[in-house]
Amino acid sequence: MKQKRYLLPQEEIPRYWYNIAADLPHSTMPMLDPVTRKPVDVESLSKIFCRACAEQELNTTDRWIPIPEPVLEKYSYWRSTPLVRAYGLEEALGTPAHIYFKNESVSPIGSHKLNSALPQAYYCKQEGVKNITTETGAGQWGAALSYAASVFGLEAAVYQVKVSYEQKPYRRNIMQVFGAQVTPSPSMSTRAGKDILTATPNHQGSLGTAISEAIELAQMTPDCKYVLGSTLSHVALHQTIVGLEAEKQMALAGEYPDTVIACFGGGSNFAGVAFPFMRHTICEGRKTRFIAAEPDSCPKLTKGRFEYDFADEAGYTPLLPMFTLGHDFRPANIHAGGLRYHGAGVIVSQLLKDGLMEGMDIGQTESFKSGVLFARAEGIIPAPESCHAIAAAIREALACKRDGREDVILFNLSGHGLVDMSAYDQYLSGNIVDCPYGK
Amino acid sequence: MKQKRYLLPQEEIPRYWYNIAADLPHSTMPMLDPVTRKPVDVESLSKIFCRACAEQELNTTDRWIPIPEPVLEKYSYWRSTPLVRAYGLEEALGTPAHIYFKNESVSPIGSHKLNSALPQAYYCKQEGVKNITTETGAGQWGAALSYAASVFGLEAAVYQVKVSYEQKPYRRNIMQVFGAQVTPSPSMSTRAGKDILTATPNHQGSLGTAISEAIELAQMTPDCKYVLGSTLSHVALHQTIVGLEAEKQMALAGEYPDTVIACFGGGSNFAGVAFPFMRHTICEGRKTRFIAAEPDSCPKLTKGRFEYDFADEAGYTPLLPMFTLGHDFRPANIHAGGLRYHGAGVIVSQLLKDGLMEGMDIGQTESFKSGVLFARAEGIIPAPESCHAIAAAIREALACKRDGREDVILFNLSGHGLVDMSAYDQYLSGNIVDCPYGK
Repeated sequence: MKQKRYLLPQEEIPRYWYNIAADLPHSTMPMLDPVTRKPVDVESLSKIFCRACAEQELNTTDRWIPIPEPVLEKYSYWRSTPLVRAYGLEEALGTPAHIYFKNESVSPIGSHKLNSALPQAYYCKQEGVKNITTETGAGQWGAALSYAASVFGLEAAVYQVKVSYEQKPYRRNIMQVFGAQVTPSPSMSTRAGKDILTATPNHQGSLGTAISEAIELAQMTPDCKYVLGSTLSHVALHQTIVGLEAEKQMALAGEYPDTVIACFGGGSNFAGVAFPFMRHTICEGRKTRFIAAEPDSCPKLTKGRFEYDFADEAGYTPLLPMFTLGHDFRPANIHAGGLRYHGAGVIVSQLLKDGLMEGMDIGQTESFKSGVLFARAEGIIPAPESCHAIAAAIREALACKRDGREDVILFNLSGHGLVDMSAYDQYLSGNIVDCPYGK
Repeated sequence: MKQKRYLLPQEEIPRYWYNIAADLPHSTMPMLDPVTRKPVDVESLSKIFCRACAEQELNTTDRWIPIPEPVLEKYSYWRSTPLVRAYGLEEALGTPAHIYFKNESVSPIGSHKLNSALPQAYYCKQEGVKNITTETGAGQWGAALSYAASVFGLEAAVYQVKVSYEQKPYRRNIMQVFGAQVTPSPSMSTRAGKDILTATPNHQGSLGTAISEAIELAQMTPDCKYVLGSTLSHVALHQTIVGLEAEKQMALAGEYPDTVIACFGGGSNFAGVAFPFMRHTICEGRKTRFIAAEPDSCPKLTKGRFEYDFADEAGYTPLLPMFTLGHDFRPANIHAGGLRYHGAGVIVSQLLKDGLMEGMDIGQTESFKSGVLFARAEGIIPAPESCHAIAAAIREALACKRDGREDVILFNLSGHGLVDMSAYDQYLSGNIVDCPYGK
């Protein structure tokens, strides 16, 4: 019987996250305070974030950051996630490539987001915080954060991008089951929301707007901190558990990836699976391609500009040196809500500048076509976000077929699509459209 | 760190199903042909079912039935499923009981149903069948069968109970992603459906009706066999993989259950987790309580009569000696669609008569209240069906608290509820009602 799944025994689950900032060939440029335009420090970041996350955000010296014991215990509830050889997909494509995916969809809330939600909630709890607030798009991050808050006894307030709030009631219901308060964004409950709604009454919302609202709530509320689901370096750090496990699991399979692929919203999902392998590229010169699959409707990596920009619409966050489409960019209402974000994190932006990774734009119909092919071949219905990674992996696998290459392709299946079935329904009934940037 | 999850290494996954029919203290009464009223044989059953399943159905001599290698290979894609110690739930209840659950929700399609869908599709394929047809309620079985059909290259036609077809569009979409043809039942495509719709134009459907339609399609179509998701003994047989794994996993935890609990529709889910432990009760006199949690709106175990009855509404199936509310019983439209079935399988009915197991009726609001408590404590949103098992486990755990007993309670978490979030939404907004039998 061919081995399909690779799991790690409990004692092999990594006990440290990997901080690539300690290994970068070129350091990132500093984040700037939005008022003084001076580099931010832990003190100023701690006004919004808990202190532990602020410290991790600016840590460029410690390569390995220990995972707190209570977080490790919660991780053990579902980790390691399986590394799976996609024999079914290989057969369906007729490719000589070896395709592997890391299955993060098996987490209790169905995606990789819990990897960062748990430590962020834990650190907040440790520091005496009572309430946490955040944004969410499709709702994967919001669901993870709601569960993490309930685990550590915190109250959670989630601003959900309005178009997703309406398109995806099931994810909102999941957050509510976990006891979170969910508000569609833009809302009238914040100044940022009011300003946006006054200017554009039918504004459908964006991650940038929802971030502004959540930050404003955190700033106005005692005992309340803001937590973020992607983009920032400490979120990427927490996600490296994915790649660190995958590295050990690929070794169990006796292989090493020629290509690592992940979908890309703010960058933490990509960072999670890619950075541990990239370490070997940076430090040992190992040749691996790293492909970030972004929607062609929101292509900051291939069509954005590298400049200082805000992470949110209202300009509350520090200025980040990043690839961006502009913090007031309004992405099309594609179903992959988690990828509707204008900018890329600071580290991934630097890596893109340095040629260590590449962006690949995927259209919405190609993404769903790939997702359905994958579902039939592997039995797992992928999240619309993950469909972008699958589409990129399929492109690469077909290139291998054309060229007769037996490449090893690894992609991260960041989440399942069971709460996104209305999107599949629309795809199957021919009602999904492409909305490429600039068209 | 306390161990929370127990998994089996690949080589420890059982390679045989357990056939309790070989160990019963009192043999079951025979199934009767609906026309001749004589005991059915393999030949007559094979007109509807594939031959391998017909043989398993009537096998009362072989205690262990080998699992075919291709099925074992597919099982290995997600099995073993975790046995989980529910520390969170224990803490929330303040009970001294040790609560474990077997987490079948991690299967690719989100429930235990795949355990039988795969072998049934495999046997059909082996016997040259091209099309398979079945019924489904909430859609867990239909989703499993659709995936299994796609795995083995068969076409699948699924009759879904109309109320679920409308209430749960996501499960229908899942079946469609796997390429199945889904028809709401009762439909005008069969004589059985037409007759029912003529008599009751607004008939909301039931599993009994959908079974009639699927059987009729199988009888009218060359190369087509009928496959069933519960009730029959061969389906229960396939589900014993759950309990056989749990037995080994409980041993890893150094415990043995005092009480085994599962929700109950036709009985295969209950049989799956219970029979392997019941073997030790029957053969070694080990003391364990076996509790089948059924909805109080469809209580065939506690309020049904033991008599010969049909498994479907139109009377196409053999007559089964079983606890039944009558094959024309119309269950209330509760959200746990998989439990809306009038009768209990032949073996479980015999075990109930013999006092080896007991039924426990659960109201709909108690089931959802229990499900939300479990979700917040354990991070997994359970299927409405599974909520009944959780409610029963909570009742037992609270009894242990009252009596100061450290009982070991094991229940089967048959599936997740991510595709049933509208039901939770209704519960959280106070719109779930109880509809007890006879009221």
